[in-house]
Amino acid sequence: MKSGDAATIEMQETSAAAKGKAPLLQAPLPPPRLEGWRKGIAIFDFIIRICAIVAALAAAAAMGTSEETLPFFTQFFQFQASYDDLPTFEFFVIAMALVGGYLVLSLPFSIVTIVRPRAIGPRFLLLILDTVALTLATSAGAAAAAIVYLAHNGNPNTNWLAICQQFGDFCQKVSGAVVGSFIAVVLIMVLVVLSAMALRRI
Amino acid sequence: MKSGDAATIEMQETSAAAKGKAPLLQAPLPPPRLEGWRKGIAIFDFIIRICAIVAALAAAAAMGTSEETLPFFTQFFQFQASYDDLPTFEFFVIAMALVGGYLVLSLPFSIVTIVRPRAIGPRFLLLILDTVALTLATSAGAAAAAIVYLAHNGNPNTNWLAICQQFGDFCQKVSGAVVGSFIAVVLIMVLVVLSAMALRRI
Repeated sequence: MKSGDAATIEMQETSAAAKGKAPLLQAPLPPPRLEGWRKGIAIFDFIIRICAIVAALAAAAAMGTSEETLPFFTQFFQFQASYDDLPTFEFFVIAMALVGGYLVLSLPFSIVTIVRPRAIGPRFLLLILDTVALTLATSAGAAAAAIVYLAHNGNPNTNWLAICQQFGDFCQKVSGAVVGSFIAVVLIMVLVVLSAMALRRI
Repeated sequence: MKSGDAATIEMQETSAAAKGKAPLLQAPLPPPRLEGWRKGIAIFDFIIRICAIVAALAAAAAMGTSEETLPFFTQFFQFQASYDDLPTFEFFVIAMALVGGYLVLSLPFSIVTIVRPRAIGPRFLLLILDTVALTLATSAGAAAAAIVYLAHNGNPNTNWLAICQQFGDFCQKVSGAVVGSFIAVVLIMVLVVLSAMALRRI
């Protein structure tokens, strides 16, 4: 009688396992509200990424097409300013084009995070590569800003004269490119923070 | 007899509740192996943070103390170079001091993540502020690098002459400060990636 009793108990526990397992399986999954929130972040990430692409490529294009030829010249020399007169501006064009290209290539990964909000891998990859892109864009923008400042104001202590009195249009276009790169930097910072927010809730 | 049987079964289930509840409570918590892994990341974060403090403050100090007075002078003028002759270098000192100060203030938060490896808030805060510090340090380092390059090589297109022939020691010290800032930038990038890795597994 005792052994039969024990068998009944075991049978009953096995049959009730399906009901008992439901909360056990659901515990690691997030609630639906959280998933919608993460999907919203992913869509926002995609939009910001497109804006950053526009800003980065516009900055590279503005710098790359900046040149000015003065309307007067001597027999041996024509006064001309172009972005490739200054190595810093060349670096700017290359770096911003790289950042823009990376951001375009990262769009598919951003779409993956929209379609599958629980995917951790793509988000983590995007966060690391965004950090690298942020550093590259910041260094290009800051270095160009330092040279643009010098072109506008000169420096009497080192006898570096301002060139923007002569090459006004050139300076204006270059300054616009620097502003564009700073906009790109701010947008990429937002991307990093968004990725971190999405990872935080996973 | 039947009701007595049911009562026995219920009694047995109640007495076994302590054993049955253990996995239910443990499901949302990570296994101990993962917790140790995250604690390791937190300790590594703390060590890298101290190295970054040293690099940032050393860069600020090297730039802040850089000056050179040439051994010859005229009646009206003494040839002297100092970091505050160039606004970019002043920005460098201020920015790197700010970054160093922030990193010192962030040490307590880093210690919190070592003591409580499951705390999400401090890690998230550190990741966002580290990203801001990364941008600040990168911009200071890149802008100073652009000016140092100009001081070393000059630029014939804009008639900016190199000053490092005259002020060699000054240039060397300033270049060292720029290298220090780049080391700090790389270390802060590692900090951001470490924070992301820790958030990923939570």
